[in-house]
Amino acid sequence: MSFSRSSGRAADSLRPVRIQRHFTKHAEGSVLVCFGDTQVLCTASVEEKVPPFKRGSGEGWLTAEYGMLPRATHTRSDREAAKGKQSGRTQEIQRLIGRSLRSVFDLQALGERTISLDCDVLQADGGTRTAAITGAFVAAHDAISVLLAQGKLTASPIRDFVAAVSVGVVQGVPLLDLEYTEDSACDTDMNVVMTGSGGFVEVQGTAEGAPFSRAEMDQLLALATKGIAELNALQRQALGVA
Amino acid sequence: MSFSRSSGRAADSLRPVRIQRHFTKHAEGSVLVCFGDTQVLCTASVEEKVPPFKRGSGEGWLTAEYGMLPRATHTRSDREAAKGKQSGRTQEIQRLIGRSLRSVFDLQALGERTISLDCDVLQADGGTRTAAITGAFVAAHDAISVLLAQGKLTASPIRDFVAAVSVGVVQGVPLLDLEYTEDSACDTDMNVVMTGSGGFVEVQGTAEGAPFSRAEMDQLLALATKGIAELNALQRQALGVA
Amino acid sequence: MSFSRSSGRAADSLRPVRIQRHFTKHAEGSVLVCFGDTQVLCTASVEEKVPPFKRGSGEGWLTAEYGMLPRATHTRSDREAAKGKQSGRTQEIQRLIGRSLRSVFDLQALGERTISLDCDVLQADGGTRTAAITGAFVAAHDAISVLLAQGKLTASPIRDFVAAVSVGVVQGVPLLDLEYTEDSACDTDMNVVMTGSGGFVEVQGTAEGAPFSRAEMDQLLALATKGIAELNALQRQALGVA
Amino acid sequence: MSFSRSSGRAADSLRPVRIQRHFTKHAEGSVLVCFGDTQVLCTASVEEKVPPFKRGSGEGWLTAEYGMLPRATHTRSDREAAKGKQSGRTQEIQRLIGRSLRSVFDLQALGERTISLDCDVLQADGGTRTAAITGAFVAAHDAISVLLAQGKLTASPIRDFVAAVSVGVVQGVPLLDLEYTEDSACDTDMNVVMTGSGGFVEVQGTAEGAPFSRAEMDQLLALATKGIAELNALQRQALGVA
Amino acid sequence: MSFSRSSGRAADSLRPVRIQRHFTKHAEGSVLVCFGDTQVLCTASVEEKVPPFKRGSGEGWLTAEYGMLPRATHTRSDREAAKGKQSGRTQEIQRLIGRSLRSVFDLQALGERTISLDCDVLQADGGTRTAAITGAFVAAHDAISVLLAQGKLTASPIRDFVAAVSVGVVQGVPLLDLEYTEDSACDTDMNVVMTGSGGFVEVQGTAEGAPFSRAEMDQLLALATKGIAELNALQRQALGVA
Amino acid sequence: MSFSRSSGRAADSLRPVRIQRHFTKHAEGSVLVCFGDTQVLCTASVEEKVPPFKRGSGEGWLTAEYGMLPRATHTRSDREAAKGKQSGRTQEIQRLIGRSLRSVFDLQALGERTISLDCDVLQADGGTRTAAITGAFVAAHDAISVLLAQGKLTASPIRDFVAAVSVGVVQGVPLLDLEYTEDSACDTDMNVVMTGSGGFVEVQGTAEGAPFSRAEMDQLLALATKGIAELNALQRQALGVA
Repeated sequence: MSFSRSSGRAADSLRPVRIQRHFTKHAEGSVLVCFGDTQVLCTASVEEKVPPFKRGSGEGWLTAEYGMLPRATHTRSDREAAKGKQSGRTQEIQRLIGRSLRSVFDLQALGERTISLDCDVLQADGGTRTAAITGAFVAAHDAISVLLAQGKLTASPIRDFVAAVSVGVVQGVPLLDLEYTEDSACDTDMNVVMTGSGGFVEVQGTAEGAPFSRAEMDQLLALATKGIAELNALQRQALGVA
Repeated sequence: MSFSRSSGRAADSLRPVRIQRHFTKHAEGSVLVCFGDTQVLCTASVEEKVPPFKRGSGEGWLTAEYGMLPRATHTRSDREAAKGKQSGRTQEIQRLIGRSLRSVFDLQALGERTISLDCDVLQADGGTRTAAITGAFVAAHDAISVLLAQGKLTASPIRDFVAAVSVGVVQGVPLLDLEYTEDSACDTDMNVVMTGSGGFVEVQGTAEGAPFSRAEMDQLLALATKGIAELNALQRQALGVA
Repeated sequence: MSFSRSSGRAADSLRPVRIQRHFTKHAEGSVLVCFGDTQVLCTASVEEKVPPFKRGSGEGWLTAEYGMLPRATHTRSDREAAKGKQSGRTQEIQRLIGRSLRSVFDLQALGERTISLDCDVLQADGGTRTAAITGAFVAAHDAISVLLAQGKLTASPIRDFVAAVSVGVVQGVPLLDLEYTEDSACDTDMNVVMTGSGGFVEVQGTAEGAPFSRAEMDQLLALATKGIAELNALQRQALGVA
Repeated sequence: MSFSRSSGRAADSLRPVRIQRHFTKHAEGSVLVCFGDTQVLCTASVEEKVPPFKRGSGEGWLTAEYGMLPRATHTRSDREAAKGKQSGRTQEIQRLIGRSLRSVFDLQALGERTISLDCDVLQADGGTRTAAITGAFVAAHDAISVLLAQGKLTASPIRDFVAAVSVGVVQGVPLLDLEYTEDSACDTDMNVVMTGSGGFVEVQGTAEGAPFSRAEMDQLLALATKGIAELNALQRQALGVA
Repeated sequence: MSFSRSSGRAADSLRPVRIQRHFTKHAEGSVLVCFGDTQVLCTASVEEKVPPFKRGSGEGWLTAEYGMLPRATHTRSDREAAKGKQSGRTQEIQRLIGRSLRSVFDLQALGERTISLDCDVLQADGGTRTAAITGAFVAAHDAISVLLAQGKLTASPIRDFVAAVSVGVVQGVPLLDLEYTEDSACDTDMNVVMTGSGGFVEVQGTAEGAPFSRAEMDQLLALATKGIAELNALQRQALGVA
Repeated sequence: MSFSRSSGRAADSLRPVRIQRHFTKHAEGSVLVCFGDTQVLCTASVEEKVPPFKRGSGEGWLTAEYGMLPRATHTRSDREAAKGKQSGRTQEIQRLIGRSLRSVFDLQALGERTISLDCDVLQADGGTRTAAITGAFVAAHDAISVLLAQGKLTASPIRDFVAAVSVGVVQGVPLLDLEYTEDSACDTDMNVVMTGSGGFVEVQGTAEGAPFSRAEMDQLLALATKGIAELNALQRQALGVA
């Protein structure tokens, strides 16, 4: 294997992960999640209303928005609010975060209210969408705790944990949790979202260079499964649940 | 197995596929592709310029846009031109089509020109994005033939074929090429893009209901591989190449 | 007369006209109308609601939207959905189609519902707006038949037929139903909309080059009257009404 | 004839017309034109550049923009700048003004410069677009005089005069120069643009209620021809040219 | 003192001020206000509804919009309606006008209705925002008179007068009511809004060049106080109130 | 004095201020500035180009953008990127920050490059714009140090320090550095920007309730002068300059 990772990280190792709850004070859930130098602030806001397509359904909703501060990246990118629209990439990511979170929520048990997950990247170094999903789950969990404490909910609508990680093939080597320089150089890039009980929620694999084989996909899925199990343990530890 | 498909279709069968070249007269490539009742008009337009980020690179570019006529669907949806913006879904799909096509093109061999692939859904019945990719490849192939015939290219920049199909799990049964009623009812929905030589270009699997297991994913990938091989044969037949 | 038309068409002849009903399956009315190489898909969609300014009035509404696929034309034009707005030309045309259709409808008899006419140009070769009006009427007629069959209406709100054609002066010769090359070369271009009983609904004449005289206008109106009578007969034939 | 006009105006009379040059001080041409209570400020601005499609052509360009102050009308309408887009009606009108003015200009003789005509309605009482065309011509004429005085042009590119008027059928009576109450009540509304030498530049007739006949159209065109001859005389008088 | 003002104006003199009521006929209040060559048309429109955040509050609202005709200035500026958005400067000014007017209104006494103040600059020569506030007050006063005359109000909700003026330091000399050439050359520019009874509503001072001192600020505030007292007298005279 | 501040703060005391440099790693300057619970991330990005109006002038430019994370506030506000435009308030603030920073820069000495200041509010508790100006100066100072270290500049273009603070009258008591509850309750709100040498750059005072007197303004300006001197000392300390 010719490719060596920064800080001597092993091919199947996550970067140092930090999950800091109560990062800001107004939101029902507020989590700064760091995968190495990637830092994403995830807030969960509860609103006692639902979008039009859910009104009267008795069901609630979870939705996500994603943004990147203009200088979260190596070179400054234009502010989407100033450009007047969100890029296709932004929309793709926020749709992914929303679907991932909804996969572990019982919307009926949530009742007719909305949890908005805002994932804002303060610093980017690869894997912002997977960090966002992992952190947004913790923020949503905190928001549910607030609703339970307020007596607005009597039982949690959370059915399982959810976390995400990226995997990829760089110079022929399958790697877990790509940082920016690896992401730029990879042939195949795959984002995997899984539940705490090991089910797949999303698998999005893209051949950036040469197409990938079934064998490579199997290796990548194994790496992702390992990484997400570790993330799940870190989420539990941050939340102080067994 | 309790679920039975319309027209008695087998679980591992494609819908009737039609690939009609030269559907309109102005475009360098113009293909009406039908997967059952899903009808997508794919045109390939050649322009002798490239976007800013490719200028002076000696490389060309392929890009795609996707649209749906307002009444392609059961109920009329608002026209995106009238709303003033493309939805996140539209952008996600057109980015997918563009990446898929570029995966089989040698951009250096294409030279500094752009092939724009417009995929407009005339009638929707599930699988519009996979039909679009499958048809857009044929339209792009025709556009390259025009460039070769005009002497603007001396060798084809096309390195392989590319096609796409959806697969999913409906009521526990893995199915190939979902139509609308199946797509609405499925637990897992996966879009797979593969090359003619059998490499994976994109795998996008989503759990709409319950998470899916490794075993289910393996079944779905096998179905997709079978379907894409058949689509690839139909593309070759439509193009009259061996 | 030095100017000769393609295919040896006479100055006062329409191009071959095709009116194909039930072109797509979801819309209440769906018509592909062809004036020679100009092909427009016209769908009529019924919605059981009206815009705000008609609410509670007891009257219905007809409205039209017009679009052109990016490569319907010789060179690709930008997609309006991607640009984020409809051009002045698009808006002008869709307002014309709407007014033309409303001129033959009894909005009171329609009841508080809306018929949306979507006219999408698949291939353009001159006269797209006149083909759109001619086809949209047939689609709207089919939609009314559906409402009658469903018992939602007991009598038709259609008071007359409506159709449209372009006329123009090319190299001093008045011509009926201009195709693209004629349209580009004409001094005067006039779009005429008339009812089945021969009343004028719209006359829009523009001097592209030299101003036009009363004598020329009279010749053009006579040509248009002849053409629209023929189109009216073709609409009746397509609909199978006397 | 049961219909009587305000102020006892005859059916074939214009309202009092006022053409006030040099209304504001910065523009090369600035004209306040009043057709009765309709007041439009028309400015002509010269810029020494042309739009992209004219660059290097040796030809100039004339273009128009139209606006209405929010309270020019009986009830306040939303400001288009605040809504973020111009209505279809606004775009239709400004395209009409631009075409009308270009019809009497020799763009080659103008040279590679642009004359922008801004027509802003201060008070509306019917006929704003026809007043705008009539006033914009005078403003453009003044702008050309400035260019001649500056020595930037040695001969005028103006080949003829152009003016416009509305005509319509109200309660069966053909009327010249409709004011708002007449315009709201009319069955047929026609805007006519003609040159000083009596050629037609634009004829736009619309049946608001019942379709109109050839006989009615002939009457309306005769009224319009009379009115435009009078407007043309008033333009000449305002400009002090024979 | 080396700097001399145009027309020999003294440093502490206003330009000739004209306040012309009933300038247009539709609005409840319509005032053309001129500070020298700066001309702003201010209309006040009454609508019997309030924005969402005031519904059910029993209180009314005043709001302002500001616009500049494209050729109100030396060189033509783009029309904001055509650009599709209002500039930051425009928004800043209209927010300032709205706040200033609200400061002298008792919103409770106004009742649940809105007064919209449209301030459109016909000709600009410095001080457009201060002229707009001064004129908008008179227009609003006229609108209230209409409501009183209609019996919709029994007592005026106007608690005080309000007017505004600009002051600045040019070449070391503090000046009242800057015209354009002075505004462009000034080191410090300050807009001051005061009530008839001499209270400050807004003070917005900006160092365009060198920072300004407390001593300069005191001089400028004294000039503004003098100017606004004169404007207040002119407002009373125009309205014919003691 | 009946009003007592949170944490027993004196009327003329700043909240605890924290200025943390190098908060993120990519930007040339990156400062987290906290005024009590108000937290703003200010980054300074250097780009070796200038906006069009400065090209070829030999001068550089400083510009600012301001944003607030959706849940920086008590209740979630809509994301401006999702709404497709920046509010008037946002534009007003970013224009203020830009002007304030430019007041202490020698743009000629900066050379033809741009410093973009992005001020993003992570948590809001009143005074976000004044914290942003204070922090942005430190970030810009760091960016200049980078340019000096890289040899791109040989002398600093910074002529002075700049900082800002809010002052206001709450229940009759003049207070320094308002927090959110004070800001909501105040009669008069004033933002003051001053240089290190004590000159005024901006004074923006607004009467939220009753107008304010000259005496109140004098008290507020004295408080602001005291507060800004303290902020200036904190900036120097953070930067380690005398």
